[in-house]
Amino acid sequence: MKKIVIAIDSFKGCLSSQNLADAIEKGVRKVWPECRICKIPMADGGEGTVEALTQALGGEKVTCQVDGPLRAPVQAVYGWIPQRKMAVIEMASASGLPLIPWKEGNVMHTTSYGTGQLIADALQRGCKHILLGIGGSATNDAGVGMLQALGFRFLNKEGEEIGDGGSCLSQITQVDSSRILPQLKTCIIEVATDVKNPFYGENGAACIFAPQKGANQEQVQLLDQGLRSFAQLIQDEMGLDIQSVAGAGAAGGLGGGCVAFLNARLISGIDQVKACVNFDSIIQDADLIITGEGKVDQQTSQGKVVDGIVKSARSYQIPVIVLTGNCIEENEDIENDSLVSCFSIHPAPVSLKEALEPSYTARQIGRVAQMTCKLFQNGYRMKEFITPKAI
Amino acid sequence: MKKIVIAIDSFKGCLSSQNLADAIEKGVRKVWPECRICKIPMADGGEGTVEALTQALGGEKVTCQVDGPLRAPVQAVYGWIPQRKMAVIEMASASGLPLIPWKEGNVMHTTSYGTGQLIADALQRGCKHILLGIGGSATNDAGVGMLQALGFRFLNKEGEEIGDGGSCLSQITQVDSSRILPQLKTCIIEVATDVKNPFYGENGAACIFAPQKGANQEQVQLLDQGLRSFAQLIQDEMGLDIQSVAGAGAAGGLGGGCVAFLNARLISGIDQVKACVNFDSIIQDADLIITGEGKVDQQTSQGKVVDGIVKSARSYQIPVIVLTGNCIEENEDIENDSLVSCFSIHPAPVSLKEALEPSYTARQIGRVAQMTCKLFQNGYRMKEFITPKAI
Repeated sequence: MKKIVIAIDSFKGCLSSQNLADAIEKGVRKVWPECRICKIPMADGGEGTVEALTQALGGEKVTCQVDGPLRAPVQAVYGWIPQRKMAVIEMASASGLPLIPWKEGNVMHTTSYGTGQLIADALQRGCKHILLGIGGSATNDAGVGMLQALGFRFLNKEGEEIGDGGSCLSQITQVDSSRILPQLKTCIIEVATDVKNPFYGENGAACIFAPQKGANQEQVQLLDQGLRSFAQLIQDEMGLDIQSVAGAGAAGGLGGGCVAFLNARLISGIDQVKACVNFDSIIQDADLIITGEGKVDQQTSQGKVVDGIVKSARSYQIPVIVLTGNCIEENEDIENDSLVSCFSIHPAPVSLKEALEPSYTARQIGRVAQMTCKLFQNGYRMKEFITPKAI
Repeated sequence: MKKIVIAIDSFKGCLSSQNLADAIEKGVRKVWPECRICKIPMADGGEGTVEALTQALGGEKVTCQVDGPLRAPVQAVYGWIPQRKMAVIEMASASGLPLIPWKEGNVMHTTSYGTGQLIADALQRGCKHILLGIGGSATNDAGVGMLQALGFRFLNKEGEEIGDGGSCLSQITQVDSSRILPQLKTCIIEVATDVKNPFYGENGAACIFAPQKGANQEQVQLLDQGLRSFAQLIQDEMGLDIQSVAGAGAAGGLGGGCVAFLNARLISGIDQVKACVNFDSIIQDADLIITGEGKVDQQTSQGKVVDGIVKSARSYQIPVIVLTGNCIEENEDIENDSLVSCFSIHPAPVSLKEALEPSYTARQIGRVAQMTCKLFQNGYRMKEFITPKAI
């Protein structure tokens, strides 16, 4: 008797990775009631990462009141895994775009301070390893707010601390790191991001991401100049060419800020999550992997969960079933991988509203899991078969 | 190298059986470019049967102008397979509900005359075998109109021919068969129906089917009395208890009329179609069967295409993939059959309008066919596997 691994991303706004895995397990058990099933909560460093890793590693959730993007108090949550002295933080929980009302120009003043407060809270607990997911931010402050919360001081030419937000970056003439939290020195910080954008310029943080955070064209230019000036400061003070770091432009330049001031590494979220849960060693003797995510599209090949799972499965030649709420866009990597089959969970024409119902999704993903396992089983029954195409 | 059989019902209002099979073949070929593929156009005796059997048996379509349900001329089509001297006729083409405007009371006067004209046309060509599909009729005339077109005369107590429609049935006191087409005697007529309703009474033709054809409660009672009186006449004149024949109530009693006057057999449409195309002998050495229909629901186990295909596949223990536009209702026979896996073709939430687009359907069914074949193939790759549950 062998084993099935279920490792699926959460369906955003619908069901968690764990809920989906439970529903899939029911379907699988209808076909193979006695097989070994390993359910591994999965995420790609974006939304759902705290939930998945806290569950997978047996941690707990910690709630902290912190400053939101416009300084209004926010109840933010992060994951704390005591036995590893590890924290899993989603920036969006403290400094996310949905936390503030939509308004043009907000992004000039939004701060990542709350994210820094979460890091500080973890450091107080003795944290030695932080996984920081930085998707969904409301900010373009190069992480200056976050760094302020950790004790860094950013001073203007009058020697005063600058104000909040990307609009103040170009005022900085001096960085004072004499008062930073001492625990920072013994904590490894890894920043999960799949964004490869540079710090500034036409593919930089401001030009690419600030418009969706509410910047008009003129504001985009101001923010870009701020980042450019801050990069120069980093160059002058620390001898570091932050512009040359791929991903420094992630989360409004916070990626670059983490690299320059926190000695952080920018890493692929799914790779990091896989490493944390020991994914490759778990699947070694698996016969089948069931994964999925809310939407499978072109981006799936750029560091999302399904991509990471398929890469691991490929090294051991394990077949993969991908279950999703949306596979309308073609993904050539999946199309052409002979080990991977992708199925949507929808049994009929349904509205988006119905499709996002948790009970509907649980029922349908269980049904499709059952059907795919039956088919897989029936393929095995064949005693002699067609020569497959090497696709 | 082995073979795949593709035998799928048409998706009504969207794509024919042949079009669907072509699209599925493309998907299958992406996985197994060199396998043998047998495409068998398939239908269940309802809409699409003429199309499927004419294609499968290499026949032609014949267009005839006949009397519609309310005597307006209609261009009706039937299938003619010269080498078998066989005709395939869908009653709906000549006497179908969509051929007349919707109006309460129409069903009191609608006639099946046009269906008789199609039969007569086939007989003139030397037809020795008719397969008559009787779904979708607009009539409740017990087939009297059809019989009139074949030379039968139905006379009232004054010895005059009665008028059109179910409202006149109770006037019949005498049947004159002296002038019927002589070819009728040497032609076998098989009526494809999965309806089991009796001729009259609370489960009879009028009570169950006349309301959807436009009869109000009072009219239903009149029609039921007409059928009751006609059954008495058949009993008196021919010694035949038509009420005891399951399915005599099909198509407004035309089923019973065919049995009583044309010596017809009422048969399951899918069984007859399978027999015509030699289905069971074709699949004997198949490794996989791909079938489907527009909607898979509870009725699927009552003589629809998928049911018939699965029954045949079961005898040879051949796995079956069912592809459908709608499997939202559970079908326990499919759920519990370890050989059968059912998948919808929809990749994402879609509107019914989009779902009925032929190009969309062809693309999606090809995609799902590819995915299912990949999965089947991957199941086969397993060298050692889980003990399956005997479901």
